[in-house]
Amino acid sequence: VQRLPLYLHCLDECDGDGRVSSSELAAQAGVNAAKVRKDLSYLGSYGVRGVGYEVEHLKFEIKRTLGLTQVWRLAIVGIGNLGTALASYDGFRGQGFEIVGLFDIDEDRIGTRVMEQTVEPIRNLAAAVAERLVDIAVIATPRESAQEVADVLAESGIKSILNFAPIVVKLPDDVEVRRVDLSTELQVLSYHLHRSRLGV
Amino acid sequence: VQRLPLYLHCLDECDGDGRVSSSELAAQAGVNAAKVRKDLSYLGSYGVRGVGYEVEHLKFEIKRTLGLTQVWRLAIVGIGNLGTALASYDGFRGQGFEIVGLFDIDEDRIGTRVMEQTVEPIRNLAAAVAERLVDIAVIATPRESAQEVADVLAESGIKSILNFAPIVVKLPDDVEVRRVDLSTELQVLSYHLHRSRLGV
Repeated sequence: VQRLPLYLHCLDECDGDGRVSSSELAAQAGVNAAKVRKDLSYLGSYGVRGVGYEVEHLKFEIKRTLGLTQVWRLAIVGIGNLGTALASYDGFRGQGFEIVGLFDIDEDRIGTRVMEQTVEPIRNLAAAVAERLVDIAVIATPRESAQEVADVLAESGIKSILNFAPIVVKLPDDVEVRRVDLSTELQVLSYHLHRSRLGV
Repeated sequence: VQRLPLYLHCLDECDGDGRVSSSELAAQAGVNAAKVRKDLSYLGSYGVRGVGYEVEHLKFEIKRTLGLTQVWRLAIVGIGNLGTALASYDGFRGQGFEIVGLFDIDEDRIGTRVMEQTVEPIRNLAAAVAERLVDIAVIATPRESAQEVADVLAESGIKSILNFAPIVVKLPDDVEVRRVDLSTELQVLSYHLHRSRLGV
């Protein structure tokens, strides 16, 4: 599952004749071709030897598996720089995600307009989850507020949370939380840079 | 290498007696214990059966391998919402990354102060890379400007780039580029939500 978004991403950038081989996909994704073929066989997708996979069909199969053939409704909590950046991030467009609410606790931000939506007070959250059928909530607050917001979200009946705050939030077992750590990829770059300077 | 930042992250959140077993670390990181032991054995770290790993020692070994025992100097290009969020992101603090320059092309932003630094025009970039010994550049521009900025960075002699723009940038082979796709984790959440609603 971790690799499917990566394959999807690589397929989005495929151009050419509408076909892709497992080795091309593997090179782009940075894994080996046997793993690509094995992963894709779980979806029931088998490439044709010497011909490869049909790109559009494979994209559809991956999207169906990831649940991206439907639109998921997002609420973003914490409309500072990061929340505003996420609200305007054009990588979500056409990926099956629609933003249906922006929430903050800061009186100065409440009522302002961001990407044609009005920032609402966080006390509206529970009603919004029920009325607007929010599927996934995104925590984009500073570290200090993240747990409090997570508690409010859990009480509101949200079952899926994406947390950008640099802290692990504690939640009931039936709430799925994923964390985005913005420093992870920097650490991978650091590794390669470190080795290249050592001459390894 | 992909998993080392994750382990480091889990270790940062370890509390208790200063020791951690491979199965605890595996549960937190969401991989199996045998894989954790194998990964860590490459670092020359071996847990003691029934006792586990010494947390601080293991953190040091991982940091040394990732090149995080030194400080890497970052420049951020594109000081919109995302760039400002990254400049103020407190998850970088104490992780071995120091921000030494903020750059933009927008005349309205140049000269403004963000986190006690002044935003500079992008034409200063090459000189800054040479004088301030920038190790890693972060592209936080919109999609449209990312390739142009990447070209300027490559000409400035930067060898490591972290790209947040939702586009693959083309660069010479000797420049290492990592991309952060903010929708990847949303897609993983989508998968779990999709399956739980199907009752799988």
